[in-house]
Amino acid sequence: MVDYSIKSIGVLTSGGDAPGMNAAIRSVTRAAIFNNMRVFGIYRGYKGLISNEIEEFKTNSVSNIIQQGGTILKTARSAEFMDPEGRKVAFENMQKHGIDALVVIGGDGSLTGASIFGNEYDIPIVGLPGTIDNDLNGTDVTIGYDTALNTIMQSVDKIRDTATSHERLFFIEVMGRNCGFLALNSAIAAGAEAAIIPEISLKKDQLGELIEQGFRKSKNSSIILVTEGEITGGALQLAERVKQEYPQYDVRVSILGHLQRGGSPSAQDRILASRMGIAAIQALLENQRNVMIGIRENEIDYVPFKRAIKKEREISEELREVLLISSI
Amino acid sequence: MVDYSIKSIGVLTSGGDAPGMNAAIRSVTRAAIFNNMRVFGIYRGYKGLISNEIEEFKTNSVSNIIQQGGTILKTARSAEFMDPEGRKVAFENMQKHGIDALVVIGGDGSLTGASIFGNEYDIPIVGLPGTIDNDLNGTDVTIGYDTALNTIMQSVDKIRDTATSHERLFFIEVMGRNCGFLALNSAIAAGAEAAIIPEISLKKDQLGELIEQGFRKSKNSSIILVTEGEITGGALQLAERVKQEYPQYDVRVSILGHLQRGGSPSAQDRILASRMGIAAIQALLENQRNVMIGIRENEIDYVPFKRAIKKEREISEELREVLLISSI
Amino acid sequence: MVDYSIKSIGVLTSGGDAPGMNAAIRSVTRAAIFNNMRVFGIYRGYKGLISNEIEEFKTNSVSNIIQQGGTILKTARSAEFMDPEGRKVAFENMQKHGIDALVVIGGDGSLTGASIFGNEYDIPIVGLPGTIDNDLNGTDVTIGYDTALNTIMQSVDKIRDTATSHERLFFIEVMGRNCGFLALNSAIAAGAEAAIIPEISLKKDQLGELIEQGFRKSKNSSIILVTEGEITGGALQLAERVKQEYPQYDVRVSILGHLQRGGSPSAQDRILASRMGIAAIQALLENQRNVMIGIRENEIDYVPFKRAIKKEREISEELREVLLISSI
Amino acid sequence: MVDYSIKSIGVLTSGGDAPGMNAAIRSVTRAAIFNNMRVFGIYRGYKGLISNEIEEFKTNSVSNIIQQGGTILKTARSAEFMDPEGRKVAFENMQKHGIDALVVIGGDGSLTGASIFGNEYDIPIVGLPGTIDNDLNGTDVTIGYDTALNTIMQSVDKIRDTATSHERLFFIEVMGRNCGFLALNSAIAAGAEAAIIPEISLKKDQLGELIEQGFRKSKNSSIILVTEGEITGGALQLAERVKQEYPQYDVRVSILGHLQRGGSPSAQDRILASRMGIAAIQALLENQRNVMIGIRENEIDYVPFKRAIKKEREISEELREVLLISSI
Repeated sequence: MVDYSIKSIGVLTSGGDAPGMNAAIRSVTRAAIFNNMRVFGIYRGYKGLISNEIEEFKTNSVSNIIQQGGTILKTARSAEFMDPEGRKVAFENMQKHGIDALVVIGGDGSLTGASIFGNEYDIPIVGLPGTIDNDLNGTDVTIGYDTALNTIMQSVDKIRDTATSHERLFFIEVMGRNCGFLALNSAIAAGAEAAIIPEISLKKDQLGELIEQGFRKSKNSSIILVTEGEITGGALQLAERVKQEYPQYDVRVSILGHLQRGGSPSAQDRILASRMGIAAIQALLENQRNVMIGIRENEIDYVPFKRAIKKEREISEELREVLLISSI
Repeated sequence: MVDYSIKSIGVLTSGGDAPGMNAAIRSVTRAAIFNNMRVFGIYRGYKGLISNEIEEFKTNSVSNIIQQGGTILKTARSAEFMDPEGRKVAFENMQKHGIDALVVIGGDGSLTGASIFGNEYDIPIVGLPGTIDNDLNGTDVTIGYDTALNTIMQSVDKIRDTATSHERLFFIEVMGRNCGFLALNSAIAAGAEAAIIPEISLKKDQLGELIEQGFRKSKNSSIILVTEGEITGGALQLAERVKQEYPQYDVRVSILGHLQRGGSPSAQDRILASRMGIAAIQALLENQRNVMIGIRENEIDYVPFKRAIKKEREISEELREVLLISSI
Repeated sequence: MVDYSIKSIGVLTSGGDAPGMNAAIRSVTRAAIFNNMRVFGIYRGYKGLISNEIEEFKTNSVSNIIQQGGTILKTARSAEFMDPEGRKVAFENMQKHGIDALVVIGGDGSLTGASIFGNEYDIPIVGLPGTIDNDLNGTDVTIGYDTALNTIMQSVDKIRDTATSHERLFFIEVMGRNCGFLALNSAIAAGAEAAIIPEISLKKDQLGELIEQGFRKSKNSSIILVTEGEITGGALQLAERVKQEYPQYDVRVSILGHLQRGGSPSAQDRILASRMGIAAIQALLENQRNVMIGIRENEIDYVPFKRAIKKEREISEELREVLLISSI
Repeated sequence: MVDYSIKSIGVLTSGGDAPGMNAAIRSVTRAAIFNNMRVFGIYRGYKGLISNEIEEFKTNSVSNIIQQGGTILKTARSAEFMDPEGRKVAFENMQKHGIDALVVIGGDGSLTGASIFGNEYDIPIVGLPGTIDNDLNGTDVTIGYDTALNTIMQSVDKIRDTATSHERLFFIEVMGRNCGFLALNSAIAAGAEAAIIPEISLKKDQLGELIEQGFRKSKNSSIILVTEGEITGGALQLAERVKQEYPQYDVRVSILGHLQRGGSPSAQDRILASRMGIAAIQALLENQRNVMIGIRENEIDYVPFKRAIKKEREISEELREVLLISSI
């Protein structure tokens, strides 16, 4: 009789880093050891799986990391893993170390890779949603999102100090790729006047209205958050437009950039990552595979990879209204 | 024909203050004005309603407060409001100002008062859950809880620096009254070794086991969070017990105290308060009364006061396990 | 006999805002009242002096502002004040309000204006050094510098999380105009690999050496701080050069921008501003004029405007060495 | 000819930990290596020197620690080192590892030990002032003081949120042993109403005056900082007195405790520690011994141990006046 039970797992982080990844690594490692599995940390994502940068982890390999931003396993994007030949080497390295299953922490690209690799070599793989963009399907929230939201909010709080002192109009560009979650929510949290996001196309005459509205409200400054990327055009392009069409405003631009990815994770991200890490091992024990751990209505959920990476999240109408009303 | 529509509302904060109350005041005020109502800020809770400390609010009365801790309306506990005579004066003051309805932001005591007052004088009252203790029923989370959780976690992060440098055992006492939510969740978030909470009685021999476990794990320090109050005995009493029964440990105590109530609110608390404030006005427009605004599964919910203040929240088994496993 | 004593002062903030300006306004106001003077807050710097935006301040006009970034008096640059006609109107407005003397909080441009105005109309004016750039002469440190330094450092700490996770080379651009103080000191504080500053010209072949050095040290990321402006070329231009000459590096740029100006002031800035505000009133009582309050060897000093705005501060050799050695 | 040059040094942290100690360890280590010395990290202060917990450090042994609170070398108090027999073992361990000289980071107790040991065995020892109390002589500031000051200030900022919301009188106890530096300076920085410090004895009738003054100023709350210890009596004892003598006030106490020791060091502490670490190695190269590195007027200074640990620092009259005037 063959023994299908998992004796040894590998854990890796892949794609863009997100605060809370270390809390997830810690929790996965300890839950595996708690369940008598061996754990291997794989460095630099799929790239390290191919180049065999693999090291056994013990309980205290993950001590004192829960509060650290970034990922101690480092992360990378791997072109070789797109290639069947690369994945073959990856699989052989897993066999060498006796790794039976993987926990992959990352965004949609990482989970897509996991899905292909898991099917190809019949490996049980469970994913954890690690991305500040909150753009995965089937989970209310992803690891890193809450920290990034707070980081952006605190930055906008600082910029507002100078914006109100000088009575200026600020365009602040935030991350999110094609997803306006970060921009819309941080606009509400920071008390900004508006958010320009990819999901809602801005009609030609709306920009001026938006700005005038901000100043009309007997306010002496105006802050507009903008999602990065081609769809919105980004903060620089918008500011350029305003400077030409509305020369009366003192316009400034701030591109928050990579500091949004870093920092000690928030309580919510650490708790979320701790819960999800334990759930990932639980899922493997239940013979789950090709699923991402999600959180729905504050309960752990298993989301098939296919559904997780499907782009169908919509921007909440209610939140758009909250921004509109609370900033009058 | 009588016109039952609400033309004017009052807003007050009552009981213990919580970060995010200002964001709620801002949102209630602007949503009311957006819906063509007048708004009156009532100072010092029910006390100020009785002593007539009432002032009309405009849109910019609440400018630049979303990021501030505490409550610009101040708060107090009122013995007079317990008395029918006090409530009569309160009602008369409402009539003088032409206030048709109230939005009350506070914890269970405040909502109990609202319930009595609303029924007595047939006044539409809607409540918002404002308390760091997260001990209200019918809402996944209360305004102020997330900020307090982060404040505690950051304090424990700091204490851990010195705890590990000296290899000590720390008991850290946190707020929560009879509710272990803050202690359990901040223990997970801060990577503490254990949480002693009112919901779970500690058997006589478990304390030593708990501590030894912490040090056995080849860790060089141990941090145990304790909910304040008689049931747990508080951190000082526990430390005293340990010093006598286990003199080998270098025990220290830290009582976080009132700093847990303050600070600029977190993104989650600001967004929650903004959403709930708008929902409160919406509820009044829908002729709701005697309900608290709750949030369930990320959707706004109306919770009858009676259900909201019923003590039936239970500590999650899953979270207790998360703490146990992630701190091995 | 003419009474030359000062009975009434005006206070204004001018030029770029800096954290701690509010603490200075508070301290000036209270020290004046403590010495039985009346105090007038002048809004928007010299611009408001010309447009007569002036309001009497009492003790509690400045309550609860010590912890706030920005300036409650707002600030602006004024072209009219460059003009004798503008200054004439300014003087007339002072007379209307019975203002005998001014306290001006700002950088070199603001103090230059103060110097001209004070001489022209024989007005006692005392300046406070309020600028994050720390580019004034005769004072060890300016109000706002320490907060900006900490803000930059915390931002670089965050960026390092993602830089080390991805093994990247980051150019981070900070403020400072023609002065490398902020860049050099924050590079030391953040543990960056190098600082490119206006005072030290970078020879053609040094950039590559600098970068290679960073990576050679068996470090897996490299962070280089750059002072904004034409002399260094700024972070974007440097990154462009590196991408072409050293395509092997994964280069990223971050321009910290206006968030460097905001935020709650640090302890040092609040204490410095409190001390200097009181010293300004003391100086006026001693019939000083045309001086900036400085701090040298932790003692208050009076610095003639002419000396204060002279550009002669030099970058410390010792600090450059500290960065070099501590980052090997 | 005997070669007296130092080829190998040991570094240790001793006594209470202070933020910035890691930055000092990093800088000492790298400066030594830069000057072609070998470096040994000694764990747990003098205790580890006796129990031989010694490990060679390389450049990257101290990577990524500049931003961490606490001390990676850990710290302890050692009774054995008080004993000549203990010091003999310590010396023998130094010989075993070939350690020629020591850099000791700590407060007055640690430097006293260093002085005795250095004289006894003719070992070159240089000290760095590492203590949050700022109670060493011959240096304007000690490593850890600025961070502790900011930590206290931020905690008081939070407590003020709730103090003003409830209109309460708060006594907040801070560290400092017999030295009022932390209490006085953080009172100024946080905008507190008064500071009760060991250097200034409070006359019987002054307490009431102090409190009434606070409330008289048309302020709705009052915060008084208190240095811990027998001389002041501490916050609890003072509050007890007030409750009995002035029952009209709503008094609360907060004892900040060990969180004052932790946290990521401030920019000033990191820069100070980096400078001092390099200066320590420089001092050894110059054949200095029995000196503490101090900073005076922003220049590095060598302070004989005897002078450094002499208790003669006085509380600045000017600062007491600043608190008095700025809080009217």
